[in-house]
Amino acid sequence: MATELRQQVRMVSSIDEMRKISKSFHGATLGFVPTMGYLHDGHMSLVKQSLKLCDHTIVSIFVNPRQFGPNEDLDVYPHDLEGDIEKLEMAGVDVVFHPNSKTIYPDGFKTHVQVDEITQRLCGNSRPRFFKGVATVVLKLFNIIRPQHVFFGEKDWQQLAVVEALVRDLNLDISVHRVPLVREPDGLAMSSRNRNLSPEERTKALSLSKSLQNAKDQIRQGITSANQLRESMKKIISAESGTQIDYISICDPTSLQEKEVVKGRTLIALAVKIGPARLIDNCIVED
Amino acid sequence: MATELRQQVRMVSSIDEMRKISKSFHGATLGFVPTMGYLHDGHMSLVKQSLKLCDHTIVSIFVNPRQFGPNEDLDVYPHDLEGDIEKLEMAGVDVVFHPNSKTIYPDGFKTHVQVDEITQRLCGNSRPRFFKGVATVVLKLFNIIRPQHVFFGEKDWQQLAVVEALVRDLNLDISVHRVPLVREPDGLAMSSRNRNLSPEERTKALSLSKSLQNAKDQIRQGITSANQLRESMKKIISAESGTQIDYISICDPTSLQEKEVVKGRTLIALAVKIGPARLIDNCIVED
Repeated sequence: MATELRQQVRMVSSIDEMRKISKSFHGATLGFVPTMGYLHDGHMSLVKQSLKLCDHTIVSIFVNPRQFGPNEDLDVYPHDLEGDIEKLEMAGVDVVFHPNSKTIYPDGFKTHVQVDEITQRLCGNSRPRFFKGVATVVLKLFNIIRPQHVFFGEKDWQQLAVVEALVRDLNLDISVHRVPLVREPDGLAMSSRNRNLSPEERTKALSLSKSLQNAKDQIRQGITSANQLRESMKKIISAESGTQIDYISICDPTSLQEKEVVKGRTLIALAVKIGPARLIDNCIVED
Repeated sequence: MATELRQQVRMVSSIDEMRKISKSFHGATLGFVPTMGYLHDGHMSLVKQSLKLCDHTIVSIFVNPRQFGPNEDLDVYPHDLEGDIEKLEMAGVDVVFHPNSKTIYPDGFKTHVQVDEITQRLCGNSRPRFFKGVATVVLKLFNIIRPQHVFFGEKDWQQLAVVEALVRDLNLDISVHRVPLVREPDGLAMSSRNRNLSPEERTKALSLSKSLQNAKDQIRQGITSANQLRESMKKIISAESGTQIDYISICDPTSLQEKEVVKGRTLIALAVKIGPARLIDNCIVED
């Protein structure tokens, strides 16, 4: 039976134990994939990359309270620890690090990391706590696990830019690997938050990827005005009742500075609220 | 000749080279003493502690521009690299890391670390940039050098509290060692900044340690009112013309919260401007 061939994944919740295991891997390459759990094929593509590149792979499952704002969806963030472990075990992951909140943020915790400029744009406007929370927890996890390779999805493009800046600016000896966004067959970007959508809302959510496809098509036809492209995208999304656009950004993929004209490599990124979920999606275009 | 027996200290200015050397020490214990140079016996007591405890000792000399405010003494901060190297070589230090500012803060640098609460007190009031600058550069140096042991002097008591919080909160696998303040024979706390004092100012600077001694004596006589102690200290310092008290703090040694009554272990810390220098000093008292 296939299950008998499976390697047993090791579950770790204490920092000391996690550190000991990491140290025992010394001399081998160690890959790390931080997640908030409720794993989908997007996460698993990160895991597969790590398994391919590294001798050992550690996945963390930690829903980080410090990256949620007071009115955000921390309480309804989906979870399925058993299902996650099953997937990670099947894939061949060595260790799952699953600390609780008090372990990561003990009483008296008072330090944070802030990446300037790029965090003020896109999602930073509507989620002011988000990137400070992400940068701090990611640095903590890196310090506990000490991987040589870490894997992040391009779906959270801005988060990736923040992690890259953090690693570079704080002189972490870590390679950050970008892994492409994974979509459902109908085009919806995979997200743990999709699970909170009703069937109707899920259909409406297709307007995100459709609007990106529309922008791509228009650019191919020679339209380069960011305003014009944004207006077309807005129309497609607003045609679905109950959608609420947070932002549509047409910007430089590195600095995340808005562009007026699509010239050179350009990121089109958007965030839209649909029912209980705030969904993001993006694509890269070349003029 | 004694010089022939000396070990040659290795000077390193590149991050990559520093990292390579640190890695080559793997398996041995590595101690690190960060300094801004112009080394005195206070620094050397940190170095000696490291040499005693660790197989290898690395000392950094880097005058960190980001911990100076716009009207502070960055431009006149004393330096004597040759003299420093001589001292470190004589002591038996393995490596001196001496990067330049562009190496530590390349173009596009935009990340910083902030420790809350304890940084808002004492020196944090008059030097708002200071601890952000210290925490960020210390974390960078720790990440480049990756020591198991680091050594800080109790003269900068608040800085030590910040480094301890940083190490704990960011899960750095590092032991922070506190080393007692070192005084000149006449009581003046050793500081690189003493060199910028005129002979007259140097005499006036003795009022800092005298005021601390006075507070200790009074406490021994049963006086416990922080206000009363502070007033006596102020009198001693203000008796010297041209001194300008920045703060006199009578506080908890861990939280740095002000006390009204000296009860239990208490930190008395002060900062005073004398001529071109802002000097600090402190002592611990038990009631």
